[in-house]
Amino acid sequence: MWRSTLIVAVRWAIWDQLCMLVLRSTKDLRESMNQGRGMCVLVPTMGALHQGHLSLIRQAVEIAKPQNGRVVVSIFVNPIQFDCKGDLEAYPRTEADDLKACENEGVDFVFIPDESDMYAADRSVIVAESILSSGLCGSARPGHFDGVCTVVLKLLLITGCHVVIFGEKDFQQLAIIRRMVRDLNVPVDVVSQPTLRESDGLAMSSRNASLTAEQRADAPRLFRALSDASCLLDPTAILDYVVKQIEASDLARIDYVELVDAETLQPASSLEQATILALAVFYGEVRLIDHVRLPAL
Amino acid sequence: MWRSTLIVAVRWAIWDQLCMLVLRSTKDLRESMNQGRGMCVLVPTMGALHQGHLSLIRQAVEIAKPQNGRVVVSIFVNPIQFDCKGDLEAYPRTEADDLKACENEGVDFVFIPDESDMYAADRSVIVAESILSSGLCGSARPGHFDGVCTVVLKLLLITGCHVVIFGEKDFQQLAIIRRMVRDLNVPVDVVSQPTLRESDGLAMSSRNASLTAEQRADAPRLFRALSDASCLLDPTAILDYVVKQIEASDLARIDYVELVDAETLQPASSLEQATILALAVFYGEVRLIDHVRLPAL
Repeated sequence: MWRSTLIVAVRWAIWDQLCMLVLRSTKDLRESMNQGRGMCVLVPTMGALHQGHLSLIRQAVEIAKPQNGRVVVSIFVNPIQFDCKGDLEAYPRTEADDLKACENEGVDFVFIPDESDMYAADRSVIVAESILSSGLCGSARPGHFDGVCTVVLKLLLITGCHVVIFGEKDFQQLAIIRRMVRDLNVPVDVVSQPTLRESDGLAMSSRNASLTAEQRADAPRLFRALSDASCLLDPTAILDYVVKQIEASDLARIDYVELVDAETLQPASSLEQATILALAVFYGEVRLIDHVRLPAL
Repeated sequence: MWRSTLIVAVRWAIWDQLCMLVLRSTKDLRESMNQGRGMCVLVPTMGALHQGHLSLIRQAVEIAKPQNGRVVVSIFVNPIQFDCKGDLEAYPRTEADDLKACENEGVDFVFIPDESDMYAADRSVIVAESILSSGLCGSARPGHFDGVCTVVLKLLLITGCHVVIFGEKDFQQLAIIRRMVRDLNVPVDVVSQPTLRESDGLAMSSRNASLTAEQRADAPRLFRALSDASCLLDPTAILDYVVKQIEASDLARIDYVELVDAETLQPASSLEQATILALAVFYGEVRLIDHVRLPAL
């Protein structure tokens, strides 16, 4: 019994490995997607996959497999969502490891397009969001969310996927994608997964790999500050507390600390409705974000 | 033989009538489209259907029927593409006639959504085009083509159609839609149909119905000016000629007369490449457009 289970497991492992296709052009991906036309689940990433991504991929596999569907992971460091060229160039790239991780998780297709394939030199059409993206990371990174919306819509339309999965860590991105899907009638279900954290509370992020040892040791203060502040009963006290905790570090530099309405993402002046306490903090050139959700008082 | 042909024809006529569904919500349309999942051809219109629209619908039927596909005509006077409220309110609405015309042509579905169904009160996402829409009707009507792109993408995604048909009369719109389809990887073929004209040369348009008898009698000068000018060999002479011909009328008021590159739609200073000679002219509040294509000299 044990032996036959092992054989089946090994066979499946081999089969899965054989079956993972890496596609490097939109044309190839679309053709692959059009063959067999089953149900399809997409996990869009910029690569440098960590446990947070793997939790999204596992959920994709869980959704797809019972329906005989296919899981697509896209790896594309989307240039048009970077407002700063240095940040784009510094973004970690670990393709070989990413492919191994996808294989292990039973991914069916990995899509790794060229920039020139995704964006024609004379491209002139974008998707633009004007309300949810006005504050938080949107005001700090002009054009960022238009770049995100544009690439996500492209990926949704190239794959023709039925379900797309995002992490809740990028809560503003998630809210904007949901809004785009609603406002443009995109035929896809948006599914989200909670933020995964390191054992010391730091939110998992591809950018964590770019921190120095000293910065890495300091960074858990972000989540600690958010968590502790969430017990306070007044918006001003909450914001003051978080700012103070971050400013206590010589390494951290605040980009923003904000308390916003959980639905509209507009600044919240009371805790009577659900809110999100969010921050973006620089360690050197590395920009980390995190947030906690505060239920209505 | 004659009799049996007649019976078959009558049967088909009845069957077609029975089969045309009028859907008034995005939800109903999407559900209908998801049933049977055949090939689908969309003709987006703002109603007030004339022979020009019917030629688009006939082409849709010709494309769809051999593949056992379905033809959808949408009728929606899209508020967000009107830069002027008076123009939106004055736009002709002839729903009962439109439905009869669609029935006669063998249309399968007519989609007539409410504004509130198409646009949520807190909508915040649009599709924006920045190059092809910068001149011509784009500069005269700020926001117009973003409104067009947004509604067309929504209609494409609600219907999931495989082919969409536009008239060449709105050549700037057609170029922008093609660009959108390319830049956003929308999985649809864009097919176009030449401008249909009245016997005196006036381009067919829903707006023609709003002209007074006197304006209607004067309006053929637009196409006559364009046609005559296209024999000239110099851009300045061409533009001067058209302007002079329009200004000779007391009823016509020029919005623009332009000569643009047929690909980029940017102003053309020579005739060495293919160009488009285009105009927009007001008769009272009614704005008419027309153009001719000039092959490379």
